Amino acid sequence: MSELEHEEITPQSEDFSRWYVDVVRKSEMADYTSIKGCMVIKPYGYALWENVQRLLDRRIKKTGHRNAYFPLFIPESLLKKEAEHVEGFAPEVAWVTHGGHNELEERLAIRPTSEAIICSLYSKWVKSYRDLPLLINQWANVVRWEKVTRLFLRTTEFLWQEGHTVHRTDVEAEEETVKMLNVYKSFAEEDLAIPVIAGEKTARERFAGALRTYAVEALMADGKALQAGTSHNLGQHFAKGFNIKFLDEDQVEKFAWQTSWGVSTRLIGAIIMVHGRETGLFFPPRVAPVQVIAVPILFDKTRDVVLEQLDKIVADLEETVRIESDARDSYTPGWKFNEWEMKGVPLRLELGPRDLKAEQAVLVRLDTREKVTVPLDRLKTEIPRILTEIQQAMLERARQNLQQNTRTVGSYAEFQETIEQQRGFVLAPWCGNPACEEKVKEETRATIRVIPFEHKGQGNCLVCGQSNASVVYFARAY
Amino acid sequence: MSELEHEEITPQSEDFSRWYVDVVRKSEMADYTSIKGCMVIKPYGYALWENVQRLLDRRIKKTGHRNAYFPLFIPESLLKKEAEHVEGFAPEVAWVTHGGHNELEERLAIRPTSEAIICSLYSKWVKSYRDLPLLINQWANVVRWEKVTRLFLRTTEFLWQEGHTVHRTDVEAEEETVKMLNVYKSFAEEDLAIPVIAGEKTARERFAGALRTYAVEALMADGKALQAGTSHNLGQHFAKGFNIKFLDEDQVEKFAWQTSWGVSTRLIGAIIMVHGRETGLFFPPRVAPVQVIAVPILFDKTRDVVLEQLDKIVADLEETVRIESDARDSYTPGWKFNEWEMKGVPLRLELGPRDLKAEQAVLVRLDTREKVTVPLDRLKTEIPRILTEIQQAMLERARQNLQQNTRTVGSYAEFQETIEQQRGFVLAPWCGNPACEEKVKEETRATIRVIPFEHKGQGNCLVCGQSNASVVYFARAY
Repeated sequence: MSELEHEEITPQSEDFSRWYVDVVRKSEMADYTSIKGCMVIKPYGYALWENVQRLLDRRIKKTGHRNAYFPLFIPESLLKKEAEHVEGFAPEVAWVTHGGHNELEERLAIRPTSEAIICSLYSKWVKSYRDLPLLINQWANVVRWEKVTRLFLRTTEFLWQEGHTVHRTDVEAEEETVKMLNVYKSFAEEDLAIPVIAGEKTARERFAGALRTYAVEALMADGKALQAGTSHNLGQHFAKGFNIKFLDEDQVEKFAWQTSWGVSTRLIGAIIMVHGRETGLFFPPRVAPVQVIAVPILFDKTRDVVLEQLDKIVADLEETVRIESDARDSYTPGWKFNEWEMKGVPLRLELGPRDLKAEQAVLVRLDTREKVTVPLDRLKTEIPRILTEIQQAMLERARQNLQQNTRTVGSYAEFQETIEQQRGFVLAPWCGNPACEEKVKEETRATIRVIPFEHKGQGNCLVCGQSNASVVYFARAY
Repeated sequence: MSELEHEEITPQSEDFSRWYVDVVRKSEMADYTSIKGCMVIKPYGYALWENVQRLLDRRIKKTGHRNAYFPLFIPESLLKKEAEHVEGFAPEVAWVTHGGHNELEERLAIRPTSEAIICSLYSKWVKSYRDLPLLINQWANVVRWEKVTRLFLRTTEFLWQEGHTVHRTDVEAEEETVKMLNVYKSFAEEDLAIPVIAGEKTARERFAGALRTYAVEALMADGKALQAGTSHNLGQHFAKGFNIKFLDEDQVEKFAWQTSWGVSTRLIGAIIMVHGRETGLFFPPRVAPVQVIAVPILFDKTRDVVLEQLDKIVADLEETVRIESDARDSYTPGWKFNEWEMKGVPLRLELGPRDLKAEQAVLVRLDTREKVTVPLDRLKTEIPRILTEIQQAMLERARQNLQQNTRTVGSYAEFQETIEQQRGFVLAPWCGNPACEEKVKEETRATIRVIPFEHKGQGNCLVCGQSNASVVYFARAY
């Protein structure tokens, strides 16, 4: 940006959707491209994704999974091997029909998800119970031909990780499915400062081809829910479609049990919409592209010495925190403060000639605006401490928001009113009938986000009044 | 692998190509898939790629570049904006023609390289000299419809990084092009232990659309060369095709100058073919997926205590080195030694009951087979030291091989004989005429690998005899 003027961000309270597009574009996280539904993730946004990747990858590896890379292409015949799967994904597939100047004999799907190609290989790799469990993850791009798209939240091409595991028993597969859901839950809460609600999806929202789908759901600042990660128990559906069998210890050949689970660049949308402020972003320190922005206060006489000292301070802190300094001449300190606040940097370090004389620097938190003066020789311990505090405060704030916006209702009328006026999660009894679920969706645009693991009580179904219905989480969602 | 028998590796000296496929497949680095020319990179191979990525990414960032992510798709009209570029790549493009059930209005190329899509965005991002230099890199998959493919070396889909930079002047662009070539050179030598020859490509081997292409070339153990990385000075070719202009400090609007540069999963092929042994792999410690394999020597009576101690030792070393222990019951220590040697692990740690009593472990180097006994409390310093030694020895050995197989010839007859019987690099004068270059290729299958930066002498052209021809590097290549 070469303009000296700040570009305006539509205030969040005025128009949440416009605010979202404004902060994403003006902070230079991402932008539209000329290709329908495809975005470009710019360096500032990609740095956030790299941090998300690194921290989640560590958790995926700690639980015994290893990364691999499978082909982008899935021959049409492979995609068709699991009936529900192809039915669910066919409408969204981008098809390659030509290679160079020649038409292909069989058209190739660009992976919308990789079960089909991976299962075709697993059917060769898995022979004996000794080959199990097979615990593999992939970081990759996938393509789904979406009609309505939104930066990060729903794009034709997106980046994600997809785990694909094979097990000896149904019990093991179920354990893995829930374990990885919990990995997502801890990751969201501890690294992204996003509290989530975990539970099972209804049949309507189930992954195409899965036996059961679990999800973690987060609440955005506008009261809409966002599915932040899913974990699927695939049962033996794909094993039967792709013939994945193993010789068990008892010498009997058996079909294997499988899982798959994934999170995507959607998470970036969640980070923005959970933590964003009225006119800017706010990144949790653990994943923030820049944790500390150093801004020098320059006057002609002391300019050189301040810059020189700031360079030293930054170089010294670089091992400990992600710090950058903004020493650009063409902008005032005030302009820079605004700029980096808009970009969601959690902590600012200011250094002027008077600070230098006193051998101190000023630190300013983005959340509380609290200013503290810290001796230079204590920055290295103080900054990480404050960053940890900010991270905790962000989680706490998001927890409170989730709690305050999770409501229990007594009647369908109350449900409709709550969804319409307050949004948030609404806990209400549901009998389990897809027709009741559908009716709620049509009339209120709210969907069942999850059937919680922890029993939330029982009552008469919101819609049909049937008794002994379990309480589930409803919300309007992205 | 559940078999107790070792699968045979064709000896390298017997049949290099079969050896290559054997070590790649039997070490479980990668395998073929049912999709023509596409491979699957299995966890052991992908772990190597992750190390390669991490170390190169660090170098790319240290030189001021930031990562981003651009779309997989390039509309046909964009690809056509630079005439030479589309001519070069069109025969290799995979085309998407359908999204879901609908035919697209304009077909989309799957990126064979991303200049076109990136330049179309840069034309919007670059407005002023203050926006320059623009230094962006991308890690991504690309697709080229290849006729003949080989695991890692030439596959329809492959993984790579591609840097795309924009500069104010031709001098800056040239500096960047050479700087990144040197980053590749240092990376190959210091991290991969692969010495390379750097220089300029001839017009025939130039990147489609570039002004000048530079490359680093390595020598494989079979005497064939392999292009390990390329760096292109794009001049203003793309800036003019895509209208990338900036307002310079003198208020004059000018076309920008650009570069692009990349290395790919091909590098893994180079690592295998430079360092591989007669019947197995050999990975340089800095990138080895497993640096140390710990093998317990188990007897019934002492089994538990040895395993318990080994677990402790491994847990303690894990912070310092990439160590794994192979405590599988169904295999003998001897079998495991062979297995991990085949898989190229540079150092083995053995621990038996007698070692334990003496509070020591045995370390065995893969290159020298040298066995040393090390007190347990010194493992943490000794292992990194030995790994560094192995890394240096590998580079030294590869350097000697390169030196011994770089020959100067006096006549075309001698050239032909050398290329046919000894392979390696052959230094010979070339007048600069593409016809002479073509003749050599047709008659000997050798190509000019690079025109070296350092003057290697002059003489009469190998083919036409013209005087004052500069000496260049010829070789048969992958």
